[in-house]
Amino acid sequence: MRIAQVAPLAESVPPRLYGGTERVVSWLTEELVVQGHDVTLFASGDSATSAELVRSVPEGLRLSGVRDHTASLLVMLDDVRRRAIDFDIIHFHIDLLQFPLFRKASDRCLTTLHGRIDLADFHPVYRAFPTMPLVSISDNQRLPLPSANWLTTIQHGLPPGTAPVVNPGGGYLAFLGRIAPEKRPDRAIEIAKQVGLPLKIAAKVDPADKEYFEHMIRPQLDHPLIEFIGEIGDHEKRKFLGDAAALLFPIDWPEPFGLVMIEAMREGTPVVAWRCGSVPEVIDEGVTGFAVGSIDEAVCAVGLALRLDRASIRLRFEQRFTASRMATSYRAAYDRVLSGLHLPASERIERGAIEGIELPCLAAGTSPIVNDIREPLPLGAKL
Amino acid sequence: MRIAQVAPLAESVPPRLYGGTERVVSWLTEELVVQGHDVTLFASGDSATSAELVRSVPEGLRLSGVRDHTASLLVMLDDVRRRAIDFDIIHFHIDLLQFPLFRKASDRCLTTLHGRIDLADFHPVYRAFPTMPLVSISDNQRLPLPSANWLTTIQHGLPPGTAPVVNPGGGYLAFLGRIAPEKRPDRAIEIAKQVGLPLKIAAKVDPADKEYFEHMIRPQLDHPLIEFIGEIGDHEKRKFLGDAAALLFPIDWPEPFGLVMIEAMREGTPVVAWRCGSVPEVIDEGVTGFAVGSIDEAVCAVGLALRLDRASIRLRFEQRFTASRMATSYRAAYDRVLSGLHLPASERIERGAIEGIELPCLAAGTSPIVNDIREPLPLGAKL
Repeated sequence: MRIAQVAPLAESVPPRLYGGTERVVSWLTEELVVQGHDVTLFASGDSATSAELVRSVPEGLRLSGVRDHTASLLVMLDDVRRRAIDFDIIHFHIDLLQFPLFRKASDRCLTTLHGRIDLADFHPVYRAFPTMPLVSISDNQRLPLPSANWLTTIQHGLPPGTAPVVNPGGGYLAFLGRIAPEKRPDRAIEIAKQVGLPLKIAAKVDPADKEYFEHMIRPQLDHPLIEFIGEIGDHEKRKFLGDAAALLFPIDWPEPFGLVMIEAMREGTPVVAWRCGSVPEVIDEGVTGFAVGSIDEAVCAVGLALRLDRASIRLRFEQRFTASRMATSYRAAYDRVLSGLHLPASERIERGAIEGIELPCLAAGTSPIVNDIREPLPLGAKL
Repeated sequence: MRIAQVAPLAESVPPRLYGGTERVVSWLTEELVVQGHDVTLFASGDSATSAELVRSVPEGLRLSGVRDHTASLLVMLDDVRRRAIDFDIIHFHIDLLQFPLFRKASDRCLTTLHGRIDLADFHPVYRAFPTMPLVSISDNQRLPLPSANWLTTIQHGLPPGTAPVVNPGGGYLAFLGRIAPEKRPDRAIEIAKQVGLPLKIAAKVDPADKEYFEHMIRPQLDHPLIEFIGEIGDHEKRKFLGDAAALLFPIDWPEPFGLVMIEAMREGTPVVAWRCGSVPEVIDEGVTGFAVGSIDEAVCAVGLALRLDRASIRLRFEQRFTASRMATSYRAAYDRVLSGLHLPASERIERGAIEGIELPCLAAGTSPIVNDIREPLPLGAKL
């Protein structure tokens, strides 16, 4: 299948530092290439991929100092439009700019929404373009917009674990991510104190969160059990998670996925997380960790988590959260889009050009097609 | 002529409080109706107009608490697209979202850029869509992008003055706008002190500028000549400007236009402004005011300004800066776009559909047309 992946331009794919979406796009792209597909990646010019790279900007826009990415994204989208004839399916990883332009190609494109959608600012576009298929990264993510055109939920996946799973030498609890109010590092600190285990905080402090860090967190770092180690690089993360007795993820907001949870599971490390957002869907209760709702529950859960079998955690990760599984799920989603079956009969639309471009019939062997793509799909047609 | 005006959605048209762009769109729209055109205004539902109003959102997005306007604008643009068949010309007053969608209709649309364009973030879109005609509001505004597809410069215009021009009773210098570093209220204060005339500051303090106000401006308000009167409403503005001996506009940034200058001139009040941005194009030196480059020059200029003939200032305003003049200039610009003559011969494009919509021939009597709109305009064709 000829697949276009359209990435955000904030960071390279994969990102040099942070960028959850760009990391996922990278894993998906590379895995689809491994699975034999013809993949083209639209991303910043400093990206690295085995797919064909279309350099939409010279480098990730954040590092370039560009604050408003709209213009660059619009230019990239026009580029995708001009090359649309080369793809069987176009997979967008940006939130909304593509909707008006690709409205008539909703039978050959889909959009994965990577962020929270509880802020109403974006909702008008999902209501106004109801034929554009959407992919959620957790069922919980959909709740603010239950009637949007959700094709399916596909959870993220990572490349497999490399280090053997061992009993952790570190004997500490891990907190990894950002020091921010909604991540609730204060809860992690309280849990560690009550459990009586060391807590290592590997996190960055964004300028916007500096005041929160100084007032709410720094005063608590004096405690002998609490250690703030600051930012750590990717290469250090696996060891940091692998040596931890458990990962604490005491979030206070509807996290749409939470990559750090599966990064911990990959190393065989159990997760104790607040019952919020995607957490109940990601954690297998009593196998890979526990979802809790209070400090007391969390303290109990840590005790239980330390007794979980780490090899079983790694195994469950391999069953559910590999990049290979994610890519296979997306391939099935592409097939569903191309079949048109996901649309209600009343919504089936004339397969038409994007912006007047005549699209050829789909390549044989990909999906059932209607030869004359300008004819509406007959209602009730069997495919 | 059947004209669509496409406004930003931040504020109603006209705005309840602030909103330079929305004020201009309102004046232009109303004047085009007066001049006999069939005008449709795409704007927020709380707008007030004698044109046909298409309510793109219920009310201005700022007052609705919407921070990211992108989705709402995209939905509005799709609405414009669906109705495009009803218009001879589409006039956009938003910066860039329309470019990919209306790319093929560049022979029947134009965009007025209302803000500064020295920030490079937006430049890619103007480079990638070089056939889309742009209107600048001053020649200076174009400087960061000299090779963009500039159709013409059309300065803003206001409804005419109503109060008779009298010798000002107030005997004060006026500063009107925002307390912000780039507006340089500190310069205005210094000038007033050196001239020995009272300064009345009618300005709002945005949250973002609070610190600047508290540290840099408030300490200077103790002086007997300096009076901070805070925000004033529209109905108070005309009297505030009309009673002033002169308006001080000591800006420190490339202001693309500066409506307050012509609002002062309308009342017969001279302007002393820094030689920055559009100022040299707006001020008629020695007639409506003076452009200066230092406090010393400004102090001299105030003395000279007080001796200018106020009736002549009002007259010059009526010659250059009325809404009627602005609308007439835009009508001529619409004709130029529709004639295709503004495009280099090599850029003349196939007049085509927007997104597959067949556009009928232009209404008779509007502009020269090519009957079959799918045929390219022959090179060198006389129109």
